Amino acid sequence: MDQQGRTQGAIGILDSGVGGLTVVKEVFRQLPKEAVVYFGDTMRCPYGPRSAREVRMFTTEIVHFLSRYPLKALVIACNTATAVALQDIREQFAIPVLGVVTPGARAAIKVSTGGRIGVIGTQGTVQSGAYERALKRIDPTLKVVSHACPTLVPLVESGSGDTKLARDVVRQALAPLKGQGLDTLILGCTHYPLIAPLITREMGEEVVLISSAEETARELSTILYHKGLLVEENQRESLFFTSGDPDSFRTIAEDWLDRPVRVEQEQTESLPTSVIR
Amino acid sequence: MDQQGRTQGAIGILDSGVGGLTVVKEVFRQLPKEAVVYFGDTMRCPYGPRSAREVRMFTTEIVHFLSRYPLKALVIACNTATAVALQDIREQFAIPVLGVVTPGARAAIKVSTGGRIGVIGTQGTVQSGAYERALKRIDPTLKVVSHACPTLVPLVESGSGDTKLARDVVRQALAPLKGQGLDTLILGCTHYPLIAPLITREMGEEVVLISSAEETARELSTILYHKGLLVEENQRESLFFTSGDPDSFRTIAEDWLDRPVRVEQEQTESLPTSVIR
Repeated sequence: MDQQGRTQGAIGILDSGVGGLTVVKEVFRQLPKEAVVYFGDTMRCPYGPRSAREVRMFTTEIVHFLSRYPLKALVIACNTATAVALQDIREQFAIPVLGVVTPGARAAIKVSTGGRIGVIGTQGTVQSGAYERALKRIDPTLKVVSHACPTLVPLVESGSGDTKLARDVVRQALAPLKGQGLDTLILGCTHYPLIAPLITREMGEEVVLISSAEETARELSTILYHKGLLVEENQRESLFFTSGDPDSFRTIAEDWLDRPVRVEQEQTESLPTSVIR
Repeated sequence: MDQQGRTQGAIGILDSGVGGLTVVKEVFRQLPKEAVVYFGDTMRCPYGPRSAREVRMFTTEIVHFLSRYPLKALVIACNTATAVALQDIREQFAIPVLGVVTPGARAAIKVSTGGRIGVIGTQGTVQSGAYERALKRIDPTLKVVSHACPTLVPLVESGSGDTKLARDVVRQALAPLKGQGLDTLILGCTHYPLIAPLITREMGEEVVLISSAEETARELSTILYHKGLLVEENQRESLFFTSGDPDSFRTIAEDWLDRPVRVEQEQTESLPTSVIR
């Protein structure tokens, strides 16, 4: 253990369900020595249609639960929660707290050739305007088209594959974005990379998809490096908690992460409650 | 001006010549509101074959020159200088100091599908082993093949286009890397993106090229954001200094950056000398 033990901490990652596993997969790939403690709030998923106050309350509860473990960084791997709760959580914790919105925005600006950027997300994320603000803060000349796709998270959480029904749901969800001349599309929900092939089939190969998950892992790597928090040796095992059915969570997680995972159920009623501002 | 005036500072960028303009181009694209103060040490270019001690001395001189301007961050946009002088410079300055090696390494790990990564750079960069260390520190299982290409920087500085001679020089330089099954190639010298099409023609479309320049601008954006140092309003004009011929520098800079630039000559004899450890 190093002097302060800080590099030995795990990376806490939370999401409304299985979507944040797309961030975990990238953390395992881009930072293979690091360990993760994950909480997927499957029982209360989706967060998208909930009020900002409720999402803030749930997020704070989960962060307090994860804080039982020694953490060196925290990732709010849910766009809805990032949009409404990131600032609050940052103010409460001394460790680096990353959301998934600005990494996706920065990556989109990096790859966009024509400055015409689409954003898809839950109602909560799109209504918050978080991506549009993050993009335009950096470059006010960008053309940004945001569109809520409330049917896509339930599609992913159902574990449905490449079926005709799935293709129809995706086609209908993305219809308003076609013909807008977009060159880049931000997958503004960590669930969406799980159906990226269906989205590309609908939007066309010429529209570059930005996975906030990949980009967030990349920025986590950057931040840990600049703060001297990367581990030297392999970390211990990662841990996964879900408020829903652990078997169903394990099936999706092991399929997506391509490795065995240890999943425990943690009822949301037992989560610490906390004062919400 | 904000309270501390910190967000109003410029981004200092230095290179052995015109190569760092690839970083400037990406900073202008990814952070269009920010201003840059650039120093290209064309007179003493290339740095690649020089001793580590000499490169450290030149780098320190230039950093002290750039410090006459209010800077909020500094980018050592030269791989050779990053490899040997980054740590020294970091210890001397309180502002964030970025090199170009670890951003390129992190990006390569992000895109590599098979973990077979090539690195091309100057002799100085390759001999330092900086990329290999940065890559293997994150993932010791990677296969890394490094190769020095001393003929490429002079090719770029000559401003040569897509000529038969240029193609021959590139073919000969890259020959040892062919047939090694690489999936990713790090352009470990900021000059190389200027001849990226020639490199792709030689290596094949299936090898993904990583431009340290693009990735460094992306990480700069991340760091400035997390430190609250991004400007809100457009910054004043950028400034370019060269120790060589300002007209020839201006020609390459305006062609590459696609905008008029203000270039001043600054003789290296007039640079501040400083104690080198």
